Amino acid sequence: MIPAAPIFVWSHLDSRAREHLCAATHGERLHFANKFAPAPGDVAAFRDAEICFGNVPAEWLGCAPRLRWMQLESVGFDYYRKLDRTRLAPGFVLTNLHGQFARPAAETALAGLLALQRGLDELIPAQRDRRWICLDVRPRMRLLHGCRAIVLGAGTIGLRLRDLLRAFECHVDVFARHSSEATVPTAAALDALLPECDVIACCLPSTPETCGFFDAARLGRLPPHALFVNVGRGSVVDERALVACLQHGRIGGAMIDVSYDELIPSDHPLWTCPRTILTQHTGGGYADELLDKARTFTLNLARYRRGEPLANVVNVARGY
Amino acid sequence: MIPAAPIFVWSHLDSRAREHLCAATHGERLHFANKFAPAPGDVAAFRDAEICFGNVPAEWLGCAPRLRWMQLESVGFDYYRKLDRTRLAPGFVLTNLHGQFARPAAETALAGLLALQRGLDELIPAQRDRRWICLDVRPRMRLLHGCRAIVLGAGTIGLRLRDLLRAFECHVDVFARHSSEATVPTAAALDALLPECDVIACCLPSTPETCGFFDAARLGRLPPHALFVNVGRGSVVDERALVACLQHGRIGGAMIDVSYDELIPSDHPLWTCPRTILTQHTGGGYADELLDKARTFTLNLARYRRGEPLANVVNVARGY
Repeated sequence: MIPAAPIFVWSHLDSRAREHLCAATHGERLHFANKFAPAPGDVAAFRDAEICFGNVPAEWLGCAPRLRWMQLESVGFDYYRKLDRTRLAPGFVLTNLHGQFARPAAETALAGLLALQRGLDELIPAQRDRRWICLDVRPRMRLLHGCRAIVLGAGTIGLRLRDLLRAFECHVDVFARHSSEATVPTAAALDALLPECDVIACCLPSTPETCGFFDAARLGRLPPHALFVNVGRGSVVDERALVACLQHGRIGGAMIDVSYDELIPSDHPLWTCPRTILTQHTGGGYADELLDKARTFTLNLARYRRGEPLANVVNVARGY
Repeated sequence: MIPAAPIFVWSHLDSRAREHLCAATHGERLHFANKFAPAPGDVAAFRDAEICFGNVPAEWLGCAPRLRWMQLESVGFDYYRKLDRTRLAPGFVLTNLHGQFARPAAETALAGLLALQRGLDELIPAQRDRRWICLDVRPRMRLLHGCRAIVLGAGTIGLRLRDLLRAFECHVDVFARHSSEATVPTAAALDALLPECDVIACCLPSTPETCGFFDAARLGRLPPHALFVNVGRGSVVDERALVACLQHGRIGGAMIDVSYDELIPSDHPLWTCPRTILTQHTGGGYADELLDKARTFTLNLARYRRGEPLANVVNVARGY
């Protein structure tokens, strides 16, 4: 009988990431599962594991008494919020990929904003139809330069986006309740600023506190040319109200990476909202994405083996 | 008989620009022509004018003996390169819009680059078809962060683009032969750098020296993932060679604002080149574009009336 492997790998890896993982865990015993095609032995292997790399189904954690540490392959961990800690090993630790998506998500936000300001939402479809629309679209072109922007959230994505917007000489405020980076520390102060803003960029995580935070009333305070960006979580915005705003031209456009439903159903009104770019939750992607996930895990594994505190521990109950 | 107006206005203006012009030229006599629908008296009015605002047909300048100053509504002036100065008034001065398009053109270049790196060239068409392609496109996502970029040209567009690329922590070189901003001062040094670059951005004007400068040999030195940007002039690049590179995947993609033919004919191969975004010479557009053109003219007019040197005088013979 093959002895149980202490490390259960559920994370999706490409060849480079897998090579790194194997090289950096030489001498360790690993069970590799394919989360897109689970094998019959995976659940049993997970039950015996001490360490897990990857986001297993939340219900599995109720029957993993030996599990001491799980390294998520995501930044978000809302999915594990309702963990019953009484069924987990004492001292169980959850770590995430804190910071990994700051650059790609901020660049996707900028890509969407610049695409809207510079007319790519019209020019790219026109290209497919070989339509020359220069004189038609040029009077609608706008600059990002000098825009007044509000970033919701002072996490790594929000702060990276703030810095990039400042390079375009935007005036950027940051809304956050518990951050020294915040320039707008209360919802009341935010509401007072909304009528003056050109760009509002949501970089908030999904927590009970953020759920529905950007509601119809807040959307209603935006000026009619404002661009709404969401690279945080779909649950933060009242999506039905957002769709109505876009459909009726009450805001200037939107760049949406995250939505309530992912994938977005084919009959969903978001697909056809005017001046709206859907990036389909690709905001975190980049060439070394899977390799960097594996690197984060192996760096933390080295700490674990030395008995040192792990990096990027999240507090499920508190939400960060 | 109406006395001849000394100021001939051929520039296309919107209502805000026209209001500004009228308010700032109170007491002056102006002849307004509509360049999109010329009237029979326009040529005669031009012949009597001392000042012209707007890019009249080059051949008109051969029969305007009183014309002392023409304010172009463009930065480029290649179209007037073959002026016969013996047929112009002594001391005739040509001024352009130096610097006006730096921000919009650099933002369009960034919009195109980020769109290619962040997959918008695939995501925007997929949206029209309501196709969820996240898992397909995400592994192809790239970051602008950290790219090695070469900007061709140290004019205002090139330097603005350099600064914005640096905000994304790109390593940026500037190729120019006669500029203290250049880090690459010779064609030989440029050729040595091309195989290492991720982004090559042409911001060169059209001059006899730049015509065909980025030829098939230089395109051939680029690595297969390199992105080619042109917000300068179409004549700078060998367009036939560029199309072949794109069609055969010998470079990674392109963002083309300027081309040999504008408008691009519907049977032109550029329309369907893979990983190519055509922005249809909208790169200079922004909300205050026409107003700023009128402001440049009225500021220069005030200098003219005070007998002061004009701003943004161009030397047609020398090319700058």
